[in-house]
Amino acid sequence: MSGPAVDGDRLWSRLMQMAAIGGFDGGGVNRQALSDEDHAAWAQMIAWGDEIGLEPSTDAAANLFLTLPGSDRSLPPLMAGSHLDSQPTGGRFDGVFGVLAALEAVTAMAKAGHRPARDIVVVAWMNEEGSRFAPGMMGSEVFAGVRSLEAVRAAKDAEGLLCGDEIDRIQAAFPNLAERVPFVPEAYVEPHIEQGPELEAAGVPIGVVSGIQGKITSEITLTGQAGHAGTEPMQARKDAVMAFARVASELQQQVGLSDPDIRFTIGRVEVTPNAPSVIAREVRFRTDLRHPSNDVLDAAAARIRAVVARAAAPCEGHVQELVNAPSNSFDPVLQARICAAADAHGHGHRRMASAAGHDARHIARVCPSAMIFIPCKDGISHDPSESATRADVIAGAEVLLDVLLASEKGM
Amino acid sequence: MSGPAVDGDRLWSRLMQMAAIGGFDGGGVNRQALSDEDHAAWAQMIAWGDEIGLEPSTDAAANLFLTLPGSDRSLPPLMAGSHLDSQPTGGRFDGVFGVLAALEAVTAMAKAGHRPARDIVVVAWMNEEGSRFAPGMMGSEVFAGVRSLEAVRAAKDAEGLLCGDEIDRIQAAFPNLAERVPFVPEAYVEPHIEQGPELEAAGVPIGVVSGIQGKITSEITLTGQAGHAGTEPMQARKDAVMAFARVASELQQQVGLSDPDIRFTIGRVEVTPNAPSVIAREVRFRTDLRHPSNDVLDAAAARIRAVVARAAAPCEGHVQELVNAPSNSFDPVLQARICAAADAHGHGHRRMASAAGHDARHIARVCPSAMIFIPCKDGISHDPSESATRADVIAGAEVLLDVLLASEKGM
Repeated sequence: MSGPAVDGDRLWSRLMQMAAIGGFDGGGVNRQALSDEDHAAWAQMIAWGDEIGLEPSTDAAANLFLTLPGSDRSLPPLMAGSHLDSQPTGGRFDGVFGVLAALEAVTAMAKAGHRPARDIVVVAWMNEEGSRFAPGMMGSEVFAGVRSLEAVRAAKDAEGLLCGDEIDRIQAAFPNLAERVPFVPEAYVEPHIEQGPELEAAGVPIGVVSGIQGKITSEITLTGQAGHAGTEPMQARKDAVMAFARVASELQQQVGLSDPDIRFTIGRVEVTPNAPSVIAREVRFRTDLRHPSNDVLDAAAARIRAVVARAAAPCEGHVQELVNAPSNSFDPVLQARICAAADAHGHGHRRMASAAGHDARHIARVCPSAMIFIPCKDGISHDPSESATRADVIAGAEVLLDVLLASEKGM
Repeated sequence: MSGPAVDGDRLWSRLMQMAAIGGFDGGGVNRQALSDEDHAAWAQMIAWGDEIGLEPSTDAAANLFLTLPGSDRSLPPLMAGSHLDSQPTGGRFDGVFGVLAALEAVTAMAKAGHRPARDIVVVAWMNEEGSRFAPGMMGSEVFAGVRSLEAVRAAKDAEGLLCGDEIDRIQAAFPNLAERVPFVPEAYVEPHIEQGPELEAAGVPIGVVSGIQGKITSEITLTGQAGHAGTEPMQARKDAVMAFARVASELQQQVGLSDPDIRFTIGRVEVTPNAPSVIAREVRFRTDLRHPSNDVLDAAAARIRAVVARAAAPCEGHVQELVNAPSNSFDPVLQARICAAADAHGHGHRRMASAAGHDARHIARVCPSAMIFIPCKDGISHDPSESATRADVIAGAEVLLDVLLASEKGM
């Protein structure tokens, strides 16, 4: 019998099957955390695992684990995967590629009759995206002890549904899953599309991720005074929408354009009461700020507070920091194994930082961790036009399989 | 038996009873058009009408009519009233004061045994506010032939419910109402709170409204390109929220502050997909523009289009005009009768323009129309803190009663 090898047809076909769960016209996917579509994705993953004897389990944060049993089950397991949830108007590759690459790696082992030295766990982290329940990466944060289960369960979606109730709902839908107690993996590897333009521009299929840039997410509330749009003189108004326009324009100039490596985004804006003929009483919005240097990040966050304090008037401005995730570095041994695996397959590779945040950021606090990037078309992600080539998808899975084989005896 | 006279206790008590329908903490009212709360308000109005023999009826646009029969029922009726619906975070007086003042006037007539020369109709127009179904003043627009019933029925609320279905629902809930065919009133008088600071500042209880300033409502769509907040370089983005911030800031400077009598408001803003870590693909918002001069109004509307065309880049901007209601003048004979009635009661009065739009704007196209204003505290409206004094409420109803008595024989 030959050694384990990735089956490209199987992997690509499964990616397209998964894209149909929550899929909508134009190639988009809406498969938000703990939604009915997420339930369907779990069912599909568990069914694929059943075919090769993977043991399904979950933990208190509704992370999904599929375990290929190893020879010595007392050893800490290797872990690989990513997330199955998508943005509301997301694409076919973000997250799910990593989960299915990991499933393909263990499937290749099982089909080849290769029993690894230790358990290998395929993981799908709960709510990486943070679009339904904010902030994101809840499952990996709870796993890594960065956020409490209570805080996660208390989050509410836009309809007022509690994350805790939705965790209970998905677990009730799969009553046969074993309950997994907290554990420390031997190592963690996460394949993912780059979500940026660098690999595609360089014509390189494999990114060896050195680390993830830091991120600070804040919620900013501007409070004014409601009033009648037809009567109240302009100079007497405390119009929260106009305060938002001023603050957002200044933040763009003073923060967003202050450094070429800064990424600054206001993606979510809620106006109250949001009625056409009522001067807005409140605007609440999120700022998403990222930079590879923690010093630059902290200085930019201070500037956000200063701009809000100055430009909100005559409204009142309040800044609350929701997430402060400093930049991190991935494990050098795993990075070396990724390079070696890419070389062995003849896949070009380059070291690069990740501009996007990933679950691996948090798991890196618990065990040696690394990420494998593949290119995505035009660098576009979080959009129905998100795309990756079949060849790059297969290359990423091949590298992952080799890294797992190289790591099964331990770090 | 003495002549008809307003019962201040009854009027004030009914205002407070109506404020409890949809009332919430802090004095606010949420009684949006055709909602369950609006159903409850209809039931209460019909019950009060029953006590004095008013005939309830409705028309295809779900306007509610309560008719006090006159001596000659073949004559065109006098009509008075306003609207019962509120903004989502509205107050206790906007609209409902005019309806209850009209009810009080006919109640005073009925209790005094005064049978008017012609029918007097108390009216509650459907959806004046336009916060649930946009735009507002749907009931009076259909009554005046300004908007088609089909267009009104096709409007959807934020949950996707059709206005037409909600019209059918409220009429099914009141199966005993007569169906009123279209008619031309002899005259129409609408009492209302000023929704501005002028009367309170002058210490005058009665405003004799000369006309309503013109209004242009537009929907503006800014279309960019979605993308990942952590990766896409700032200079490469087409961020619809940032385009909105630029456009809104420029509109404030170039339109809102260009003339002391301009009122310019962006009260409703919808971001798509509105997720914290996704660069916004689209922002859709409403501009509410008002001015007493139609020339200034048209010039300002042209400037809105110019600012959007220039400042939206690199996003695309599109302006659609939803409402274009020129300024109008109210009937001089009715205005004179309002002055005379105020003088007879010793209530101070002053002529003034209305900054806010009202149903009377549309009814004025059909028959002689006028409005009676009373002061409201600090000029605040469309807010739970909206307030009017008991004395001013009673003064307004006294003036309305006298104007109806002076007009019952005809214009």
